[in-house]
Amino acid sequence: MAVSGGADSVSLLLLLHDLREELQLQLSVAHFDHQLRESSADDAKWVEALCNQLAVPCVIGRPDQDSESMQQGGIEESARKRRYHFFQQVAERHKINWVAIAHTADDQAETVLHHIARGTGLKGLQGIPETRELTESVTLIRPLLQVNRSELIAELASRQQAFLQDESNTDFSFTRNRIRHDVLPYLKESLNPQIDQALRRLAKQAQEAQSAIDELARNLLDQSLTNSESLRDGLAFVRLSIPEMKKQPVAVVSAMFLKLWTEKKWPRKQMSHFHWSQLTEMATTKSPQGLALPGGIQATCRRDVLEIRLRSD
Amino acid sequence: MAVSGGADSVSLLLLLHDLREELQLQLSVAHFDHQLRESSADDAKWVEALCNQLAVPCVIGRPDQDSESMQQGGIEESARKRRYHFFQQVAERHKINWVAIAHTADDQAETVLHHIARGTGLKGLQGIPETRELTESVTLIRPLLQVNRSELIAELASRQQAFLQDESNTDFSFTRNRIRHDVLPYLKESLNPQIDQALRRLAKQAQEAQSAIDELARNLLDQSLTNSESLRDGLAFVRLSIPEMKKQPVAVVSAMFLKLWTEKKWPRKQMSHFHWSQLTEMATTKSPQGLALPGGIQATCRRDVLEIRLRSD
Repeated sequence: MAVSGGADSVSLLLLLHDLREELQLQLSVAHFDHQLRESSADDAKWVEALCNQLAVPCVIGRPDQDSESMQQGGIEESARKRRYHFFQQVAERHKINWVAIAHTADDQAETVLHHIARGTGLKGLQGIPETRELTESVTLIRPLLQVNRSELIAELASRQQAFLQDESNTDFSFTRNRIRHDVLPYLKESLNPQIDQALRRLAKQAQEAQSAIDELARNLLDQSLTNSESLRDGLAFVRLSIPEMKKQPVAVVSAMFLKLWTEKKWPRKQMSHFHWSQLTEMATTKSPQGLALPGGIQATCRRDVLEIRLRSD
Repeated sequence: MAVSGGADSVSLLLLLHDLREELQLQLSVAHFDHQLRESSADDAKWVEALCNQLAVPCVIGRPDQDSESMQQGGIEESARKRRYHFFQQVAERHKINWVAIAHTADDQAETVLHHIARGTGLKGLQGIPETRELTESVTLIRPLLQVNRSELIAELASRQQAFLQDESNTDFSFTRNRIRHDVLPYLKESLNPQIDQALRRLAKQAQEAQSAIDELARNLLDQSLTNSESLRDGLAFVRLSIPEMKKQPVAVVSAMFLKLWTEKKWPRKQMSHFHWSQLTEMATTKSPQGLALPGGIQATCRRDVLEIRLRSD
């Protein structure tokens, strides 16, 4: 599991340590020292000492010659990438299948609010997932995602367990800190003291709605393909049955096209909102009859078939 | 159309007045004087004078012996009910089919944020609809829902058209005013200057997702009913095909049960989140085999059929 030394991850470490026999866990700790603060080496030593005390193996990671992909994006994003990359490496090296991360219900509410404000749409509203596959054999899990930070801190206090106060080791985000310390307290005071729960409920509903639409889009793609091998890499066109697409709600048809573009590795980011809605319109009303799309892709209606192909010119 | 005298509704009045020949509109104005402020009679006179100047008929409404249903809820909610009831009455009396209301893109963003904070879930995230049926013959429309208030105010300034500053005639909501004047400006400054657009995009996506799920739930209810007359009023049970329900995503099955409860007029509000999820679980896994629900409703799995009935005791 990942331990920064903050209240959340120290709590999760103690919890998993308590349960190690019952759940037959082989517990290991990974701590990433980003070396962005002077005191970060002390934090790493503190985590090592705690692990020694609990007799849990501990691996400390530090930034090395990073590949270029790690350095893309802002400081926050690249730090996050480095950290998760390190966790994944440790897991693979030690044949560990589950990496536990101590995100809490508070992190969830903060993330949902952050995504609402940034405008990441319904997808972003889903917030942090309970589990995520890092590789085929390594899965990230978040066992504390339903637990409030205040409960964890109370439990640590009752056990007289210390923890590190400065969590910037795991969270460089200026915006995230502002959301935690300013924005959420402000919204609680001015709009609803229970806004955390409201945000989490919204995330859950968005997850359910999005996964329903994804599932239906997946089925629709299978059912409306008239040339069954057309998702095979290399084939430069697909043919889709218009009557099949007409049976489904617009949101499902749109989601299906997004899936198609992803699978064909067509340039998704160049597609504007206008392009997607024109395409959905074609799929259900056969109008317009022809449409030129980014990346040299041409969509054409022929009777009951919508053909989408890469232009050869 | 409804005119409070504020910038939004004065703009819409001028716009519809400009377009009256082109669109062959027969324009009438309705203004509701809630008589909750001393100056409200002056506002009504001001609106009447503006209408005289434009040669548009104007009807002023005032609270009278209200029916009890109008008095339920807080001051804001009951004022809103009275106002819309008045608009509907005027429309019916004058055989008007469309009631235009001057809600703007800013109102939409404020509403979405308000609903997020209150925790009204994905349904609330949809915000204000573009149209809504008041009665069979009267439809409410919101032609300015994509337009920013600042554009309207700029246009009024360029036409040197005055408007009433105090809009509390149409909007008593303390929370709403706080969202407009404090919360949104604060979020723009601290998180994203474009948060309005982000909120509106979210509303649109939530509308699309919700209408997809509603449509699929409607279809599923039709397809899974094994006794085709079971939605007929008075029949105390329904039988639903488990294999049909199993084909659909969980969110669609849940939405279908909500529709069923609404149509059968079973006590929906007494159903907890736990009840709904137990029922959805039964519909897809046949477990538990029996379930007692609020309002004396019993759900039972018999082979491939889920039977839901009112207990006779």
